[in-house]
Amino acid sequence: MPDYKAPLRDMRFVMEELHNFGAGYERFELTEATPDLISAVMEESAKFAGEVLAPLNRTGDEEGCHIDDGVVTTPAGFKEAYQQFVDNGWASMTGPEEFGGQGLPASLGFVVAEMIGSANYAWSMYPGLSQGCAAAIRAHGSQEQKELYLNKLVPGQWTGSMCLTEPQCGTDLGLTKTRAVPQADGSYQITGTKIFISCGEHDFAENIVHLVLAKLPDAPEGTKGISLFIVPKFLPDANGEKGERNGVKCGSIEHKMGIKASATCVMNFDDAKGFLIGEVNKGLNCMFTMMNHARLGTGMQGLCHGEASYQSALAYAKDRLQMRALSGPAEPNKPADPIIVHPDVRRMLLTMKAFNEGNRALAYYTAQLLDKAHYSKDAAERENAEEQLAFLTPICKAFMTETGLEATNHGVQIFGGHGYVREWGQEQQLRDCRIGLIYEGTNGIQALDLLGRKVLMTQGKMLRAFTKEVHLFCKENEGNAQFGDYIKKVSALNAQWGEMTQKIAMKAMQDREEIGSAAMDYLMFSGYVTLAFFWVKMAIAAQSKLDAGTSEVDYYKAKLATQEFYFKRLLPRAQAHVEALESGAESLMQMTAEQF
Amino acid sequence: MPDYKAPLRDMRFVMEELHNFGAGYERFELTEATPDLISAVMEESAKFAGEVLAPLNRTGDEEGCHIDDGVVTTPAGFKEAYQQFVDNGWASMTGPEEFGGQGLPASLGFVVAEMIGSANYAWSMYPGLSQGCAAAIRAHGSQEQKELYLNKLVPGQWTGSMCLTEPQCGTDLGLTKTRAVPQADGSYQITGTKIFISCGEHDFAENIVHLVLAKLPDAPEGTKGISLFIVPKFLPDANGEKGERNGVKCGSIEHKMGIKASATCVMNFDDAKGFLIGEVNKGLNCMFTMMNHARLGTGMQGLCHGEASYQSALAYAKDRLQMRALSGPAEPNKPADPIIVHPDVRRMLLTMKAFNEGNRALAYYTAQLLDKAHYSKDAAERENAEEQLAFLTPICKAFMTETGLEATNHGVQIFGGHGYVREWGQEQQLRDCRIGLIYEGTNGIQALDLLGRKVLMTQGKMLRAFTKEVHLFCKENEGNAQFGDYIKKVSALNAQWGEMTQKIAMKAMQDREEIGSAAMDYLMFSGYVTLAFFWVKMAIAAQSKLDAGTSEVDYYKAKLATQEFYFKRLLPRAQAHVEALESGAESLMQMTAEQF
Repeated sequence: MPDYKAPLRDMRFVMEELHNFGAGYERFELTEATPDLISAVMEESAKFAGEVLAPLNRTGDEEGCHIDDGVVTTPAGFKEAYQQFVDNGWASMTGPEEFGGQGLPASLGFVVAEMIGSANYAWSMYPGLSQGCAAAIRAHGSQEQKELYLNKLVPGQWTGSMCLTEPQCGTDLGLTKTRAVPQADGSYQITGTKIFISCGEHDFAENIVHLVLAKLPDAPEGTKGISLFIVPKFLPDANGEKGERNGVKCGSIEHKMGIKASATCVMNFDDAKGFLIGEVNKGLNCMFTMMNHARLGTGMQGLCHGEASYQSALAYAKDRLQMRALSGPAEPNKPADPIIVHPDVRRMLLTMKAFNEGNRALAYYTAQLLDKAHYSKDAAERENAEEQLAFLTPICKAFMTETGLEATNHGVQIFGGHGYVREWGQEQQLRDCRIGLIYEGTNGIQALDLLGRKVLMTQGKMLRAFTKEVHLFCKENEGNAQFGDYIKKVSALNAQWGEMTQKIAMKAMQDREEIGSAAMDYLMFSGYVTLAFFWVKMAIAAQSKLDAGTSEVDYYKAKLATQEFYFKRLLPRAQAHVEALESGAESLMQMTAEQF
Repeated sequence: MPDYKAPLRDMRFVMEELHNFGAGYERFELTEATPDLISAVMEESAKFAGEVLAPLNRTGDEEGCHIDDGVVTTPAGFKEAYQQFVDNGWASMTGPEEFGGQGLPASLGFVVAEMIGSANYAWSMYPGLSQGCAAAIRAHGSQEQKELYLNKLVPGQWTGSMCLTEPQCGTDLGLTKTRAVPQADGSYQITGTKIFISCGEHDFAENIVHLVLAKLPDAPEGTKGISLFIVPKFLPDANGEKGERNGVKCGSIEHKMGIKASATCVMNFDDAKGFLIGEVNKGLNCMFTMMNHARLGTGMQGLCHGEASYQSALAYAKDRLQMRALSGPAEPNKPADPIIVHPDVRRMLLTMKAFNEGNRALAYYTAQLLDKAHYSKDAAERENAEEQLAFLTPICKAFMTETGLEATNHGVQIFGGHGYVREWGQEQQLRDCRIGLIYEGTNGIQALDLLGRKVLMTQGKMLRAFTKEVHLFCKENEGNAQFGDYIKKVSALNAQWGEMTQKIAMKAMQDREEIGSAAMDYLMFSGYVTLAFFWVKMAIAAQSKLDAGTSEVDYYKAKLATQEFYFKRLLPRAQAHVEALESGAESLMQMTAEQF
């Protein structure tokens, strides 16, 4: 049976030695986020993840969710684990204090989310969706709505869901058919069918707050006519407690490739009472608050599965005896050598390790940007953080899920036939991970968001917000004797990033299809360069510890070796993406649909 | 529900216009393989695959196999389909006439296997394993064994299995523990446990002939002490019919990620009666006869899933309406454009198409080599065919399954959320395809086989057997006005292949780990170059039809466009593999196991 142990050492390296979370907490006067509290949170999270959630991961997959007349039952142990999560204050950790939260920074929330998601991603979706729902109400709800719903959502007493997709529209929300008819009391009557609603119905909590996209009868066509509504499963009564049952019911749940313990629901709204959140026809703006939260969470999913898969694969590679090392027996007393001696097994393990640790550095950097955007007293710093966040969100979502999938795929392969058998849990990591490339906006949509909306529509401003960071770092370290070549490499890639963008912008003026044709390769290139930047940064941090003298020589040497591996064996792919995208739109667009 | 229609047009293009199967059949005096017969075989196979097998693919996955006290039941309809397969003569198609076969060429068998495997890969494994078993008996059995077993196996009345893997050994067959004790009557008593035995037990046929690797009590250590035995489930009686039950029983079946309708068995041999096939301690040689057959079949599996996934994805991409083309509405009367207008959807479809059609060209070329090796009267031609076969087998097995997996992964993505839901069948293609990278020797082992055994151990002779073909083709076409640049590209890659190999050989003299460190990237590079060669060849063939005037303009233009796409968007990856492998072993080998 697979096991999960939170990689606390590496997490702390990224938090403290790479990104210096502590300095931010001090600067933003987050006085509660003391080193002691952070240690306690991390250790308790690790325990909860490893001891409570991880053992439910495979049983959850085997059992799945069940539905009976609209009532969804989650796998054995799931709701009890959630109760523990609520009782011990995990649900409320990063929530605002005025609504029962503990007000801890988002960056710390990310670290905890990694542990929980790695242990049991399907389970983690229930609280994850709630947080997205709470974030949207906090950002766009009226004071009354905040009091009514956040007081329940923040501590985790109620949970939330996001109801966007319909049978005829996933990506294209302008095609939304769900109707919202204004009522005399100021509420709306909501009618329509939503599909693929994660955690739309379940038995974790007494009430579920749905955020639903719908159109008013007189709404303009397309996405400009979409509004967002709060539709609780049970309407709050006069005391704000669970009251009358509302007209929303789960019609069925999907049978899926993975994340089987997360109920994916068809939700039928039948004259349900809904309450407008934000302005009429501005629903998409409100939705993006949840969506950006969910996209970063989905990026994290890539890391979670990659990490869980790596831990199992590494243990197996050290344990499984098969063949001798080509350069001579490593363990002559045993019938064969452990497979970790074989270079191709190492190639797979190192690929997993390089993506996981690189993605962790990226994810925690992004988490720190959330802190900055939220707490900084300097408007320019907030704006810069928002820009970098907007730019990095599609990269996190898509690159981290693509590389997470590659990692879990290697994790299966290292186990050989045992990786394909359910017993060992490796194939579940791959199946569970696969959804990350699809939901919360497919990776193709992320790529368009990055290149079209974030880069080209801002005339490169958002790109420069990040490449400037890279540039400053390279400038600062250009004299570094040991890593000079790597820094030069990153610097060249950083420059290439800008130049390539300008070339695409020029071509796009002639042919709009150049944007979509370049987008996915552009995103992957961006991901590889971003990780190269973080990898050199990590290597320099590790070397400085080695230079200063440390008892953790193995840990830091592994960082250096993994950085070298990344540059030599993975980063070359970046130029294949450049070559592909610079070949232009023609090879994609010239065929007619009939010729396919 | 997904549908499968055999791509007869493209199959015939590869068979006739690219590889000219007919000329070979004539030259080898395969008088029965007339154009009329071939047409009939293909049309009937297409019907059987599309109408009988395809409808059982998803139900087979849902139902899986079941076991009760050693008796395995396959999903509803499976054994009836097999009976039809036997009754209509599909089982015996390529079998030798002296044992009830029809003696049709292996190349035609491959074409039929593609259809059957694309329609229902799990089902196709039962007859597939039988053919491998029959091939081994044909090549290594005594005349008596041939008469006893081939007369049953060839027509499909009995089926076969390959029993190699044990709990402690998959790749490393030298660790085999199954014992074979010689008996006074010349037979052997076989005792041991085999795992991961595909089709080891089922309800398709009245008897199952197991080929089992085992060691004699006095056998030398390692792979030099392995012998191969025929162990029938029921011993043949005096008339060669199913007789007494033998001491072999299925202990359990695996719960797997995919190919759920193919029973993967734990087989317990308990003093079972076995008959030596071939020489004592030369079992590995005999096994490789089956294994090479199985490896080509597994390569084909990548194509099968890629093709089935493409057909569904293409239909969906033409049907699903979502968003507008960036360059302006393509279907202004509809609420949105079909997603095939979007460049990123096209990128995924074209990637699938380019791999599928390229892999088909490679697979059928290999199939033609089987014909040459078998039927040619010219010893030099036979030897050259054997060399190319030996060289291309690991490329087929690994490159075709890697790219098949990529194709099915895109197939899921094109469907968005619907790709992740079981109903549409796309996620099953991905799950089923995944095993291809593992069984019959993991792809890492294929890579070692290619670079170590086939290329370096022959001092490059086997590599040259193939690169010479490429060279001659490039030479012959270097004046081609339209495709000159592409031919130059192939020619350069072909030269690079040889030079790169020499560099690795030099490095390997200093450090044996350089071989394993380079192997996987070497294999992938080899695959990309091989497909580039076939793609230019296909483009030239297509252009000549367009030049001559044809009613199938769309078909041939699609070939040209896909060739261009392959060169511009996929082939750039080849250099990333070169850069990775030329960076050497150090970045893989420097970390100690503890540092991971």
